[in-house]
Amino acid sequence: MTTDGRLARGARTRTAVLDTAVALATEAGLDGLSLGQLAETLGVSKSGLFAHWRSKEELQLATIERAREQWAEQVVAPAMRAPRGVRRLWALHVSRLDFYAAAVLPGGCFFANAEFEYNARPGPVHDRLAELLAEWIAFVERLGTEAITAGELAAEVDVRQLAYEFEAVGLSAVMRSRLLPSESAYPFARRAVLDRLRAACPDPTLLPED
Amino acid sequence: MTTDGRLARGARTRTAVLDTAVALATEAGLDGLSLGQLAETLGVSKSGLFAHWRSKEELQLATIERAREQWAEQVVAPAMRAPRGVRRLWALHVSRLDFYAAAVLPGGCFFANAEFEYNARPGPVHDRLAELLAEWIAFVERLGTEAITAGELAAEVDVRQLAYEFEAVGLSAVMRSRLLPSESAYPFARRAVLDRLRAACPDPTLLPED
Repeated sequence: MTTDGRLARGARTRTAVLDTAVALATEAGLDGLSLGQLAETLGVSKSGLFAHWRSKEELQLATIERAREQWAEQVVAPAMRAPRGVRRLWALHVSRLDFYAAAVLPGGCFFANAEFEYNARPGPVHDRLAELLAEWIAFVERLGTEAITAGELAAEVDVRQLAYEFEAVGLSAVMRSRLLPSESAYPFARRAVLDRLRAACPDPTLLPED
Repeated sequence: MTTDGRLARGARTRTAVLDTAVALATEAGLDGLSLGQLAETLGVSKSGLFAHWRSKEELQLATIERAREQWAEQVVAPAMRAPRGVRRLWALHVSRLDFYAAAVLPGGCFFANAEFEYNARPGPVHDRLAELLAEWIAFVERLGTEAITAGELAAEVDVRQLAYEFEAVGLSAVMRSRLLPSESAYPFARRAVLDRLRAACPDPTLLPED
């Protein structure tokens, strides 16, 4: 096998291990993640994992980056296929709710869980989660601004306010759908954002009625 | 000391211990709570605590009940002094945001953290959290129904939808105010509910303008 081949295989293994770590963290918590537990789940030696990540914190930070890639691929990418403007914003909300409803991760949402787990624990994990939350909010705001520029949302819409509500409604849906019957979560989460967008859209026919 | 006196003193001690447990759980997680750690924090013997709670799960369940009392006293009770109707609903939201902003608990919100921590962990803790979430949502819905009955919210308002958004906006505020600057949380959380209530209220002068 060539060096390139070994590197490619190593990267695939690393990604597969981190996918398991992302899923585990949604159940046991990001703090509950350990090299030992991960090795046991995967049926590999702890020393093999230790070659990739020297400490629990390194593993946690790598897991966060993998969760971000997964979110980009599975939630953001499908939404980017919708036309720029109010339909893309709506597609992003639907894509997120679909991701939750499909139970891709056993514990719902990696980021929602980790954000609540680490909101009061200072350190590199907290700081990286904060950066990614700010990045996500800025992304939603940018889609809002694009919709205004396209004339598909009223110019007076406060995109920061819109992004706050958009994010809150999605965040609540994943938790509620796990603790209570999912009918008490998704239909309301869908309606909340749809009402908000339709009310601010000069041409509501761009959006579904319900 | 009389038996009554001893019982009263015992109940006070129990409450004080559980107050510490509630606060600890918001930082270490409800799963991170242990009789050993609690004893160490309080500077008492583990065996003394063991007389009250025989297992970690018993302690967790007792801590949940204490957090519920605290929420009733510090969030719900102040709001109940507002007149029945739309002003009480608004007072409840303000009271909740004030509770978060005052940093009564070091890790923000006991229930928000525990709900995300336990959403995928079956068992008595999960089930009790689910019951209390359902109870809280039903309470918010009841205040909405009272506001409609009082003619202070339009009859066509869907109180289940209103309660979903009310809860989502508050939930998001406590997490965001810890991970990001609090100005990126509370003003938007306030505005979101105020806009919603004012838009549905035949007499918006019952509510503040901002």
